[in-house]
Amino acid sequence: MGPGPINADPRVLRAMSAQLVGQYDPAMTAYMNETMALYREVFQTRNEQTLLIDGTSRAGIEAAIVSLVAPGDRVLVPVFGRFGHLLREIAERAGAEVHVIEREWGTVFTDAEIEAAIVETRPKLLAVVHGDTSTTVAQPLEGLGAICDKHGVLFYTDVTASLGGNAFATDALGLDAVTAGLQKCLGGPSGSAPATFSAKAVDVINGRKSIEAGIAGSDAEIATTRIRSNYFDLAMIFDYWGEKRLNHHTEATTMLYGARECARLLVEEGLDAAVERHRLHGAAMLAGVQGLGLEVFGDLAVKMNNVVAVRIPDAVNGDAVRGELLEDFGIEIGTSFGPLHGKVWRIGTMGYNARKDAVLTTLASLEQVLRRHGAAVVGGGGVGAAYDVYEDAK
Amino acid sequence: MGPGPINADPRVLRAMSAQLVGQYDPAMTAYMNETMALYREVFQTRNEQTLLIDGTSRAGIEAAIVSLVAPGDRVLVPVFGRFGHLLREIAERAGAEVHVIEREWGTVFTDAEIEAAIVETRPKLLAVVHGDTSTTVAQPLEGLGAICDKHGVLFYTDVTASLGGNAFATDALGLDAVTAGLQKCLGGPSGSAPATFSAKAVDVINGRKSIEAGIAGSDAEIATTRIRSNYFDLAMIFDYWGEKRLNHHTEATTMLYGARECARLLVEEGLDAAVERHRLHGAAMLAGVQGLGLEVFGDLAVKMNNVVAVRIPDAVNGDAVRGELLEDFGIEIGTSFGPLHGKVWRIGTMGYNARKDAVLTTLASLEQVLRRHGAAVVGGGGVGAAYDVYEDAK
Repeated sequence: MGPGPINADPRVLRAMSAQLVGQYDPAMTAYMNETMALYREVFQTRNEQTLLIDGTSRAGIEAAIVSLVAPGDRVLVPVFGRFGHLLREIAERAGAEVHVIEREWGTVFTDAEIEAAIVETRPKLLAVVHGDTSTTVAQPLEGLGAICDKHGVLFYTDVTASLGGNAFATDALGLDAVTAGLQKCLGGPSGSAPATFSAKAVDVINGRKSIEAGIAGSDAEIATTRIRSNYFDLAMIFDYWGEKRLNHHTEATTMLYGARECARLLVEEGLDAAVERHRLHGAAMLAGVQGLGLEVFGDLAVKMNNVVAVRIPDAVNGDAVRGELLEDFGIEIGTSFGPLHGKVWRIGTMGYNARKDAVLTTLASLEQVLRRHGAAVVGGGGVGAAYDVYEDAK
Repeated sequence: MGPGPINADPRVLRAMSAQLVGQYDPAMTAYMNETMALYREVFQTRNEQTLLIDGTSRAGIEAAIVSLVAPGDRVLVPVFGRFGHLLREIAERAGAEVHVIEREWGTVFTDAEIEAAIVETRPKLLAVVHGDTSTTVAQPLEGLGAICDKHGVLFYTDVTASLGGNAFATDALGLDAVTAGLQKCLGGPSGSAPATFSAKAVDVINGRKSIEAGIAGSDAEIATTRIRSNYFDLAMIFDYWGEKRLNHHTEATTMLYGARECARLLVEEGLDAAVERHRLHGAAMLAGVQGLGLEVFGDLAVKMNNVVAVRIPDAVNGDAVRGELLEDFGIEIGTSFGPLHGKVWRIGTMGYNARKDAVLTTLASLEQVLRRHGAAVVGGGGVGAAYDVYEDAK
């Protein structure tokens, strides 16, 4: 019941025990095409270039940034939690001139704040995390597509923490690049990064391939614009997933089976139904921890459905409580990073763990552990408040 | 029965259907430590830094090169097949000054040729593929460690194609960096790259971390020496796998389960026994295709145990034969790349497919398909020659 990775859906685990097939076996290339189509539904996009990056969600982020951004390009990163810092760092290592605006953890930016920074820094790319699990809040994206369009800025977001559990639609939001991971609301393991790229983003990326092929003049120009990574060279990855089937890496077959099953589960359930499920169980968990008498952290108006940050009561040792929950009750909850380290626990209700029994056993167990550690808790208050949410939803 | 990826061992597939645990769950960190110890045995090394890179074998190569090599560093790459070109390309993208020596595909370098190139180019790093599946031959490494030591050169090899099926010992060969993959003789899926680094390599890599932390003077110096990738920053990955457990990526749990099981299988069988198994079945397949009257490609004195390249008879269409074998007999064999494209098939006997029944059914089926395509074959000659090899081994 942490902020991810979480228990995988048993159907995903079974899919990952299927025997391998060769990478150019028609069965395998059909699976690849099917996976692209499934993730177009998951991402709510018509983007042709919708595929998997073979690595953890961080690999998807680096592939997007290193392929879109050449050394010296300006990138604007609004930072409101740990993963904004990660986007900044990856863009810096890609040689970008990175501009950062920061907000206190637990809050998000207004559109006006981001537009003002765009006007001031004139970036090629706006790179913003959607949901930052470190703080549990999600940056509203609704107004940013039009702003990026108006100023000629590429618009990229990472939705690893939010996808599948919170409303999201790539094309409607005007996004040019989106990356994700399986280990949160998608109910799979870390190790595959679904991603999608607009035609505009594809043109930028493929333009860097053309230059590599010798169209540009000087060596210096080639050295500047060539994509700095082979593994993350999306132009090559597009050609591997596309009709050309040009050999690049050897597709991670088992991870593809897992990613495909995650998407099948979500599409079968229906994206709206999955978001509603996360909303319901997230609301029950939020009401439950509040019902126990605990305080929550962050702006609840923009809290993700799938995770809640709970202030650790002064009376208890946060790590001792987490350890006892894990060791004696078999329930894991998360710690946090940076300014929140030692101050909050993070409790997830996502993917396969967005279930009534998971919510109620967690609240029941947390009450008992807190009690044994001498914290003041409202007896039955957590489970009772969660039950109330479930009753109201009937 | 292609050159990899191949059928995974059923034990590996079952291991990959195990439920996930959190990334800092003591069970998970214990699995990580156990995986490091297992791969020390597989790599035959005492290197502390023996771990997994989360991505395909190409990710391991890029992590090694981008972490060891700063822009402007000289790298020597002996190229004798497709994967030598890959090492060169990855080093170029890392900003290295890359020097290449080339040999005809199917042959390997003498120690003297490599030493002469080292003397001439004075590289920081010698990067050489061990077994290049594109040509089926393996570069002998026995003399190169001493040469690198004499000239103060870091010595790196990729053993994706050879590890587990051919004699190999990291420390005895004097290697500073070794990378691999699961999808060949280790009997697992692509998607995890085991790797090991000597104390000398670790010093070089961690030295680049120190500079990042602000010890060096100018921004230009930092920009030059800082590792260009976050995802492949081995200094950070060492700290994630080490006692510090500093959060980097979210470990790809299912791939770790698979990589761990691959190593357990190999260590249980015994590395020498596994190499002998690959030698035996590789010899049977080689004798078998020759017994059918087919010609093989490449210097047999340095052929890997686990793959053979067979010249496509003039009378037949190579892709049609491969297609019929796959579609009607359920047996996949490989095509090849570059100068060998359309000229040879590659047939593997590796990992779970290094078995007598797999060898005999492949030879029996290949005979029938060749016959139907009008090629001259020795009836029963393939299976008969393979049986002779098995009889001799008794």
